[in-house]
Amino acid sequence: MSSDLRNLNSFMTGSPPFGQALEGDKAPASAHKMMDNEVFVNFLLYSTILVIKMYLVAVITGQVRLRKKAFANPEDALKHGGLQFCRTDPDVERCRRAHGNDLENILPFLFLGSIYSFLNPDPFIAWLHFFIFFVGRIIHTVAYLVKLKAPIRSVAYTVAQVPCVSMALQILWEVVKL
Amino acid sequence: MSSDLRNLNSFMTGSPPFGQALEGDKAPASAHKMMDNEVFVNFLLYSTILVIKMYLVAVITGQVRLRKKAFANPEDALKHGGLQFCRTDPDVERCRRAHGNDLENILPFLFLGSIYSFLNPDPFIAWLHFFIFFVGRIIHTVAYLVKLKAPIRSVAYTVAQVPCVSMALQILWEVVKL
Amino acid sequence: MSSDLRNLNSFMTGSPPFGQALEGDKAPASAHKMMDNEVFVNFLLYSTILVIKMYLVAVITGQVRLRKKAFANPEDALKHGGLQFCRTDPDVERCRRAHGNDLENILPFLFLGSIYSFLNPDPFIAWLHFFIFFVGRIIHTVAYLVKLKAPIRSVAYTVAQVPCVSMALQILWEVVKL
Repeated sequence: MSSDLRNLNSFMTGSPPFGQALEGDKAPASAHKMMDNEVFVNFLLYSTILVIKMYLVAVITGQVRLRKKAFANPEDALKHGGLQFCRTDPDVERCRRAHGNDLENILPFLFLGSIYSFLNPDPFIAWLHFFIFFVGRIIHTVAYLVKLKAPIRSVAYTVAQVPCVSMALQILWEVVKL
Repeated sequence: MSSDLRNLNSFMTGSPPFGQALEGDKAPASAHKMMDNEVFVNFLLYSTILVIKMYLVAVITGQVRLRKKAFANPEDALKHGGLQFCRTDPDVERCRRAHGNDLENILPFLFLGSIYSFLNPDPFIAWLHFFIFFVGRIIHTVAYLVKLKAPIRSVAYTVAQVPCVSMALQILWEVVKL
Repeated sequence: MSSDLRNLNSFMTGSPPFGQALEGDKAPASAHKMMDNEVFVNFLLYSTILVIKMYLVAVITGQVRLRKKAFANPEDALKHGGLQFCRTDPDVERCRRAHGNDLENILPFLFLGSIYSFLNPDPFIAWLHFFIFFVGRIIHTVAYLVKLKAPIRSVAYTVAQVPCVSMALQILWEVVKL
């Protein structure tokens, strides 16, 4: 087994809690492992903010629906003035495309980033992966919602994909090394 | 490091399996850690049922497509009577919106709930988070598919979002405490 | 607690890293646990390739948009010849349906497969689950994009769902056994 995957292995097969209690007083946590910790905690910071950002896009979509009076369901339209408001609207569709693109990109990042964090990456390199993705996705959402000139949105999307593909290839590399 | 994150830390840096074998006979698992176990097992119960629920919405969509003869692809329409059945249908679109909303909400819950389960939450509070989300999403799907009067569906959606935002904020809080 | 869930329990409550360092030289990793490792590593192989496959569908969608000059956003159309190219196209919509179906099926697989890998499954049976899903989803995408005759795509979709439902039911079974 490769040395990097040994870390993933230990993650997968951890010993029971009393092990922690018994040994906790014998030796300090190794700095090396604590850095892994930092990587995952770092990943949690950016990924959780991005999940909240996705929720915000949903809230904005709802607000635009109310403001433009454009509802997807007859029952919603009826409650807000009549069936004629069961209709599509370019601004609502724009919000929904932003949200849809988030699903296509942020959700796989949650998976890849979690696994990658346990492959013993260099903490700075790992931070760079997470940070580039984070900034790329924030710019992507802003560019979508405020209709920034092309190709800002596409560039942000492409830049954010680079760390994702990098993490996917590193996971595959660790797997095939076995 | 905060005491709550120490648990996440141990989750992230578990020791190899022989540790378990060697120490397993020395001491019983601590009740405290077993409660964490219960939280994650509890989370698995609700999250897995919700994944199956999503699969059911997909099955229902397929059945409605067949019953209303409304297919998304020409090749499917050709197999079921002719190209004129490659068309949209309000009931099919309704199923697809229900499914799409599940993707936007249940998939992030799978991530947030997994992490939150390892932040050493109070088991009852954790159960409350999972249960409110679960009931909210079941009502959301039923309200969508059987066209319940507004705002039942929107209220169910909003209520289900509360534990998600709560878990996200608690994860962020643990991260920034470091 | 069931013996199968004991493994999940140890996964959830791993001891700190120095445990690994201290004991790593005393005893070899148990073959039994290494098999679990193999299951998860096996899962990572197929799941990561499928995530990359999803990214490829997104790239293909972009290429088809450029080739057919059919853009979702006015700002993109303006950059590529004019607002008349902000329009839908059957081939673009086909790519988007393939991608959407991936989101509905591959993303839940990432969750179910991760959990299932820690339920101590038989390695061959687990491989069979992952491999059937993998082949089913590859055929699904190819059938969608090159417009294979019905019902190839639907059969591939259904076959790929079988291991997912199987994994979900096995997770539920382990949970309710407690």
